[in-house]
Amino acid sequence: MHQYASQDKIPGGGVGLAAPQDGQSSCQFFSDGRRKVDYVLVFYQRKQISVRGSDRLHRLSAPPHPPHRLSVISNGSSTLSGPVGGLGCAAGQRSAGDGEVCVDLAVEVELEADPAEGEMVLIREEFEARLLEAGLEMERDTEVRVYGPSFTRLHVPWQVLSREAEFLKIKIPTKKSYDLKQENGFSASLSEFWRKVNQPFQPNIPQLGHSTTKQLSHCFSRDKLHLFNITSKDTFFDNATRSRIVYEILRRTACTRTSQSMGITTLIAKGVYDSAFPLHDVSSCPSSCTYSICDDVTVNLVIMLLLVTQTVIHCELSNCDVIGLSDSSPLCRGIIRLWVTLRGMTDSCCMMSGPDMEPSTNTNLWTSSGSTLGRRLVCTSPGWASTLSCSYQPLWLGLSSSATAVTLWIWTYPVATFLEHWKRRQISLNHSWDLTGLEEEEDHPRPKYETVLLQKRQMMRNKEKKNEKKKKKKKKIEPVQREEDVAAGKDRWRQKLLSAMNTGTSTGVEKLTWRDRLPGYLINISSILFMFGLTFSAVFGVIVYRIVVSALMAMSPDPETKSNVRVTVTATAVIINLVVILILDEIYGAVAVWLTELEIPRTESNFEQHLILKAFLLKFMNAYAPIFYVAFFKGRFAGRPGDYVYVFNDYRMEECAPGGCLIELCIQLSIIMVGKQLIQNNVFEIGIPKLKKLIRAWKGKGISLEEREEQRARPPQQWNLDYTLVPFEGLTPEYMEMIIQFGFVSLFVASFPLAPLFALLNNVIEIRLDAKKFVTELRRPDAVQAKDIGIWYNILSGMGKFSVIINAFVISFTSDFIPRLVYQYMYSQTGTMHGFIDHTLSHFNVSNFRPGNAPTSSYLPETTVCRYKDYREPPWSAEAYQFSKTYWAVLAARLAFVILFQNLVMFLSLLVAWVIPDVPKNISEQLKREKTLLVDVFLREEKEKFHLLQSLFSSKDQPSQGHPDTAHFRTLPLGLSQGLGQPPGGEGGESRVRCRAASFSQFTRQMSMSPSNDAARHTAV
Amino acid sequence: MHQYASQDKIPGGGVGLAAPQDGQSSCQFFSDGRRKVDYVLVFYQRKQISVRGSDRLHRLSAPPHPPHRLSVISNGSSTLSGPVGGLGCAAGQRSAGDGEVCVDLAVEVELEADPAEGEMVLIREEFEARLLEAGLEMERDTEVRVYGPSFTRLHVPWQVLSREAEFLKIKIPTKKSYDLKQENGFSASLSEFWRKVNQPFQPNIPQLGHSTTKQLSHCFSRDKLHLFNITSKDTFFDNATRSRIVYEILRRTACTRTSQSMGITTLIAKGVYDSAFPLHDVSSCPSSCTYSICDDVTVNLVIMLLLVTQTVIHCELSNCDVIGLSDSSPLCRGIIRLWVTLRGMTDSCCMMSGPDMEPSTNTNLWTSSGSTLGRRLVCTSPGWASTLSCSYQPLWLGLSSSATAVTLWIWTYPVATFLEHWKRRQISLNHSWDLTGLEEEEDHPRPKYETVLLQKRQMMRNKEKKNEKKKKKKKKIEPVQREEDVAAGKDRWRQKLLSAMNTGTSTGVEKLTWRDRLPGYLINISSILFMFGLTFSAVFGVIVYRIVVSALMAMSPDPETKSNVRVTVTATAVIINLVVILILDEIYGAVAVWLTELEIPRTESNFEQHLILKAFLLKFMNAYAPIFYVAFFKGRFAGRPGDYVYVFNDYRMEECAPGGCLIELCIQLSIIMVGKQLIQNNVFEIGIPKLKKLIRAWKGKGISLEEREEQRARPPQQWNLDYTLVPFEGLTPEYMEMIIQFGFVSLFVASFPLAPLFALLNNVIEIRLDAKKFVTELRRPDAVQAKDIGIWYNILSGMGKFSVIINAFVISFTSDFIPRLVYQYMYSQTGTMHGFIDHTLSHFNVSNFRPGNAPTSSYLPETTVCRYKDYREPPWSAEAYQFSKTYWAVLAARLAFVILFQNLVMFLSLLVAWVIPDVPKNISEQLKREKTLLVDVFLREEKEKFHLLQSLFSSKDQPSQGHPDTAHFRTLPLGLSQGLGQPPGGEGGESRVRCRAASFSQFTRQMSMSPSNDAARHTAV
Repeated sequence: MHQYASQDKIPGGGVGLAAPQDGQSSCQFFSDGRRKVDYVLVFYQRKQISVRGSDRLHRLSAPPHPPHRLSVISNGSSTLSGPVGGLGCAAGQRSAGDGEVCVDLAVEVELEADPAEGEMVLIREEFEARLLEAGLEMERDTEVRVYGPSFTRLHVPWQVLSREAEFLKIKIPTKKSYDLKQENGFSASLSEFWRKVNQPFQPNIPQLGHSTTKQLSHCFSRDKLHLFNITSKDTFFDNATRSRIVYEILRRTACTRTSQSMGITTLIAKGVYDSAFPLHDVSSCPSSCTYSICDDVTVNLVIMLLLVTQTVIHCELSNCDVIGLSDSSPLCRGIIRLWVTLRGMTDSCCMMSGPDMEPSTNTNLWTSSGSTLGRRLVCTSPGWASTLSCSYQPLWLGLSSSATAVTLWIWTYPVATFLEHWKRRQISLNHSWDLTGLEEEEDHPRPKYETVLLQKRQMMRNKEKKNEKKKKKKKKIEPVQREEDVAAGKDRWRQKLLSAMNTGTSTGVEKLTWRDRLPGYLINISSILFMFGLTFSAVFGVIVYRIVVSALMAMSPDPETKSNVRVTVTATAVIINLVVILILDEIYGAVAVWLTELEIPRTESNFEQHLILKAFLLKFMNAYAPIFYVAFFKGRFAGRPGDYVYVFNDYRMEECAPGGCLIELCIQLSIIMVGKQLIQNNVFEIGIPKLKKLIRAWKGKGISLEEREEQRARPPQQWNLDYTLVPFEGLTPEYMEMIIQFGFVSLFVASFPLAPLFALLNNVIEIRLDAKKFVTELRRPDAVQAKDIGIWYNILSGMGKFSVIINAFVISFTSDFIPRLVYQYMYSQTGTMHGFIDHTLSHFNVSNFRPGNAPTSSYLPETTVCRYKDYREPPWSAEAYQFSKTYWAVLAARLAFVILFQNLVMFLSLLVAWVIPDVPKNISEQLKREKTLLVDVFLREEKEKFHLLQSLFSSKDQPSQGHPDTAHFRTLPLGLSQGLGQPPGGEGGESRVRCRAASFSQFTRQMSMSPSNDAARHTAV
Repeated sequence: MHQYASQDKIPGGGVGLAAPQDGQSSCQFFSDGRRKVDYVLVFYQRKQISVRGSDRLHRLSAPPHPPHRLSVISNGSSTLSGPVGGLGCAAGQRSAGDGEVCVDLAVEVELEADPAEGEMVLIREEFEARLLEAGLEMERDTEVRVYGPSFTRLHVPWQVLSREAEFLKIKIPTKKSYDLKQENGFSASLSEFWRKVNQPFQPNIPQLGHSTTKQLSHCFSRDKLHLFNITSKDTFFDNATRSRIVYEILRRTACTRTSQSMGITTLIAKGVYDSAFPLHDVSSCPSSCTYSICDDVTVNLVIMLLLVTQTVIHCELSNCDVIGLSDSSPLCRGIIRLWVTLRGMTDSCCMMSGPDMEPSTNTNLWTSSGSTLGRRLVCTSPGWASTLSCSYQPLWLGLSSSATAVTLWIWTYPVATFLEHWKRRQISLNHSWDLTGLEEEEDHPRPKYETVLLQKRQMMRNKEKKNEKKKKKKKKIEPVQREEDVAAGKDRWRQKLLSAMNTGTSTGVEKLTWRDRLPGYLINISSILFMFGLTFSAVFGVIVYRIVVSALMAMSPDPETKSNVRVTVTATAVIINLVVILILDEIYGAVAVWLTELEIPRTESNFEQHLILKAFLLKFMNAYAPIFYVAFFKGRFAGRPGDYVYVFNDYRMEECAPGGCLIELCIQLSIIMVGKQLIQNNVFEIGIPKLKKLIRAWKGKGISLEEREEQRARPPQQWNLDYTLVPFEGLTPEYMEMIIQFGFVSLFVASFPLAPLFALLNNVIEIRLDAKKFVTELRRPDAVQAKDIGIWYNILSGMGKFSVIINAFVISFTSDFIPRLVYQYMYSQTGTMHGFIDHTLSHFNVSNFRPGNAPTSSYLPETTVCRYKDYREPPWSAEAYQFSKTYWAVLAARLAFVILFQNLVMFLSLLVAWVIPDVPKNISEQLKREKTLLVDVFLREEKEKFHLLQSLFSSKDQPSQGHPDTAHFRTLPLGLSQGLGQPPGGEGGESRVRCRAASFSQFTRQMSMSPSNDAARHTAV
């Protein structure tokens, strides 16, 4: 079976294409029941149309003819004139290239209707005539619809198929097959185990199985039909290949009326056709998706939960982490508690805490001090802080440094090497889908570009005409002086114009310059900047919301409200963030398309690249801006006690919880990631197509009652059903989803180790929902062969590099990992963590509050010196409240860690990329083997050819050495006579027969030598 | 002309291959003067050899036969038996596959001599017989040499050439050519300018010129000879292709006697042949290199000096830099002064110094304080230091930060984007050399590997035999109990043995396992570690030398000696370093080869990869270790006054000059780089081949007087001359040289901006010397097609990444750039650099010297507080002599700069890689065009084929519809009949003729449609 790379672009997207091919029902065929419908063109009839024109066309491809004869007729038969009978007019004149006479019949009625509509009918006529000319066969509905969609069904016969397959160099499995090398021993059981582990996550589609042989593939060639296993010409090419070939013909068949180079894409862009699509493969008609999602998901979830522990090993939180947890959202706490329970970890968490600590007794000091005082400032009896040594952080960061290094590596390794593995996988897939030798496809120009170019040409011509008129006027005024100049100039212009008219292109206007695109670019840049601004202001808005609401709630007299401040604010703010992200995501997607259209890219792939880049930038910013804020900026601009930073003059800038920002980052990440995926998956991906379908059905109710009656009487055909589906609009959204998810998993893996679990969960569901969507909600996409995932690979690779830096910063700046290390090795007298919290707290003299900003005395105890979390000089120092030496030392250590981490990971990634070969070993061995086998096959063929020639000579050369067989020899086609080693000129002196005998004997020798060659090659491999 | 990628691997290496082909003299031909010598096999006759055997072989290929007939004879004529006359025995029996009878004649005499020598003669006999069988033609000297080299000259006839060219899919230019798109306007003049600028640097070889058309290339095929422009079959394939084809045959022709799969490589490895090489193309005979090096170099130097200013813009030094310069080497000072003069820069250098500074007055304080006190400690009246603000650094680091950023980017840009440009260049070259569709070559197994494998098998067999014997013994002792077991075991072994004997391979021993290689790996690792140690101890040795000698010289009573301490020590130490590097470089090269041989890699490319990696690691360490020491470690372990670090108890660890280590880094880099290149270029690359040639000539004097007389009488043939040259031993050394140079240029470009100039100078000379070497000193290498530079690209890319980090560290740690910035923005009260030097100096109380280590009082002035360059707390602080807050702040700033710089450069490189397309635009357009043209050509061909068929049918079908032409139709070769669309089975019911007519008419239609297709394709492109 021939598979297409586009299947792999989204997981499970291939279900539609790879559906079983054998159980085809009659609904996919022409009304003769023998010719398969390979493609459907639809146009939407908005006005009553002439019956005569359509009838004529209908008759042209009417079913009652026997299939063999019909193929001759509907092909237009340009050289065979005469025997077709009554249709001679249509066929004969169409082949003459203009088709005017016959089309007239249809047009005379048409012109009564909308003139644009009439033009469209003409274009359709021309296009379909050209399709017939190209060898396609065509069928229309027998009854003529006055309103609604009209279907033109296309069938591609064997001759066209084989010709195009040869041109397109489509690789087809040959009869020759070879045994795959079986893995044995440990690696076999390992891969078997891996397959079993992996199996529940795979969608439940009929697999190709674990076959032990592989068929040698070769580019299809009509000269080498004997190589292929052709049981039936109707089913030799699978449906995907057939539709691909039809699409290729549709694409390149240009209409002179549109004066553009592209075929169907232009026509759809111009509205001549409404749509063009291949039919879904269905086993029964009408189609019903028998796909069961729920069974898979429930089974898999259980297995997965057991397996995933390895991925998220170190997510436990400790009992004493109440400081950080007490005011975090219940969801995150719940998740973390779940994990603690799951892994049965009940051991004490504070690895470094000695027996003399009473951490939980002091926690209330932190949380109850209220927002006016600021959670940062703790005023109590001196000396208590030295007993504290706990703050929230994942357990792994509290391990010994060597263990931490190992853990870091375990996490960053998959991200850093993901691309290496993908490269290998890609090559394996290429090989198993016979794409190894695939050449780059041509880049198709976009219809829009050509339209703009045509408009520009038209404008230029108009300008020229105006200029000429002006010149004529001038001429009248100064008739003598400038006459010659003008005449010469006019001549030049006229020549240019004439040549432009003739060739269809104006020599001056070959392409759009940057001047034409300048407005587009300007709008692009300004819009993108504006949208960046929008994203940032959304983030800032949520910040302001948080600050204001928490201040208001803190001032509320209700103690219930007061105690829930943090939970309420955090939860609502994150949900607002999520909603904003989801809305902006949809807006940005649409805006990116609009902006890219404005750029007028020349080719389809240009368009795609620009679109992807823009959409990625916007969506990336949108999804990650709030997370980046929490990870790196929150709390860093809050100032210090006595010198707080205020927004809107009254509201203090927000800070993180005393335990650090890591816990908030975790909450933010989990809610946004899970929420985004759940909502986008369910609501947008499934809901919106369903909604569109509904709207379409609702629109269809505008037709008259009789029509509906009629429809009800007749069962809908496959093309009717497929037409009601939503058109396929590219894989970009699917890819984008995966890339953003990859970002969640890779960028913050160090701070949110549950991300891979959520991603896995999501993908298990996603692969099934997508499969369902592609089979039941979307029209079948055109099959396209692609060697790789294109620009997405670059984006993934850039993201991988970026994630290394971000993780380095998260570990060193957002977590307490580095301050702990610094304390332990530079400041701790005992070499333990004892006294760490004390070390991180600075002193503050209450008298240093700015007048008016000091909290009311009820909050302040009797002591005058309070503590806050920062590395600053004490009030009694000469540089009071300046950053202390410790601050700079810790900063230097943080930065050094970033450098070390980044370069280490990069170096190891390079090493991994170096050690893992790009081409998997078994694939490279198979490729080598296929090469040898191919040489074998062709050598044998050459030998057979030689025997054939020898038998020819032996039967003809001996009885008569004369004239006739020389002529025969001379007319051997395909340059065979030259291949025999005979010099092209022929030597004068010697007799021709002797010369031929000599050269032939050389050929003989040569051929007889091939086996030894062959053997040498064999042993050499 | 067909060029080979190996030419580009070293600049100018292609001169030998691309030499003109037209002026061939008779010395390159067989003695018939018509058949070209394509390859030469040489074996060295050490004992007197039987005249009979050689004579017979000589007769086999004797020249007096007419060329046409001789080709039949010397090809072994396996199928034509009889007409060859007196040589029937040799030819007939050789074709039988054993060649025993005829070889006997030679062997019976042989056996008198050395038995190993006799075996070699047998192998040669067999090998040459097989070559004849493969279609090569052969000639030996007419007179038999009793001692010295014996030449076997090979010629490849047209049939073999064309067959092999088809197998190898060699691309050949066709008759069809197309116009290249001409650049116009600005880009044309730009590229023309660039060409002119570039031209003096290119070697003076006949260029292919700037042609405006390009010929379409297509894989050679004997079926499509009409596509190619074959004027003469002797010159159609160029010499490189011919020799490549011969080499291919030689390589794969295996001997049964050696029982190894490879041909000539095995034989050379076993010493059966001494050497095998193609001949140089020479215009006159004997060859003389008319290449003039001096003319080019002198002209180019002048132009280059003018051009290079752009590359090294900012290398000026200022007048006040005497602090750093006063004790630097005269060479570096000279170079820098030269640049100052060249660019006419006489403006004051210390950009930041105000008018109140008197920098030069205090310099003596630094330098004259002598080594016992340490140059770091300056004791003078307090307050002087604030007037100082100069220290050595390149001017660009003293610019404003924005200007510095621009400069940094200008330098790092070329390194970061070099690989992007190289990728594009590679693709251009691939296209112009017709390598675009080149498939990966097979990987050839190494003879050594096979030998070891054979030995292992032999050992296994011996062991098995022993085991069997033991078992037999056991059997005697316990005859009853184990009989069955043993019998079964024995049977199994015997069966294995038998099958192994039959197939030539033991089933158990298919490849070497890691067990076989373990000793090799162990030796490898330990040797590499040992050599790393060697490199480091060499570096340490030079450090010790410097410390000891400078201490001794400082203690010398002679004031002259004393004042020159630094200059003398630095200069001698660097020269010692250079010598050590050069010696170790050669040693490491040899050791790497030895170590890789120990690993027994399976294939040639494995061997090469392992060798390159090892050699690169060793040579990289060797070349850069001393430089890295100076850049990053020197002076950092010297301690502080009062707590100096001592080596050998008595000698203080060395420090940099007070101006910083940058100036020493500059000296070190320039001397090592220039010295290494000059010496390796001249002495090793040119001198050693010359020396080898001399030794070879001297060895040749061992022959008898008569021989020499004889030689003198006869002019030496081309093969004699080529044989005296040194064998070609791969391009690895040439690449290595370039890579190490790339390291010098890229790793330290920020600190040594002259490096690109030196590299350019070196390469201008190198390209010429290499050209001369390849043409006149080395035997012609075998032409190999290569798509890229393989593993070297990875090394270059790794080096580029490494260089970014190293440059970041050099700028931030070795230079004063960051401390200056920090001072200016954090500490300076005026925002200027005023007071910077004072800020960098710490205070030291003389009373804190350790007892016994204090300098004599004569060095110390009256003050008790001296200054030294470091950021430490003053003696009066609580943490006296600890690192101060400033130290940590500066450290943090330095690290932050490293992170910023590295990520910025990486990001910009990614951006550049993204913006610059991999495939240059003109190449991608050409490729597209070639594709269209090819489709055109083949469509036209298909049409012609069709017309041919049509004429066949029209002439034969009409008169008789009967039997004979059906047979004719059926026997049409090459699957044409199947291509007509006829089903392979043939349909039963219909008459055969009608069916054929129908399918034929379809074919007709199909063909007539091609033009429209064709047009559609045309417009679509």
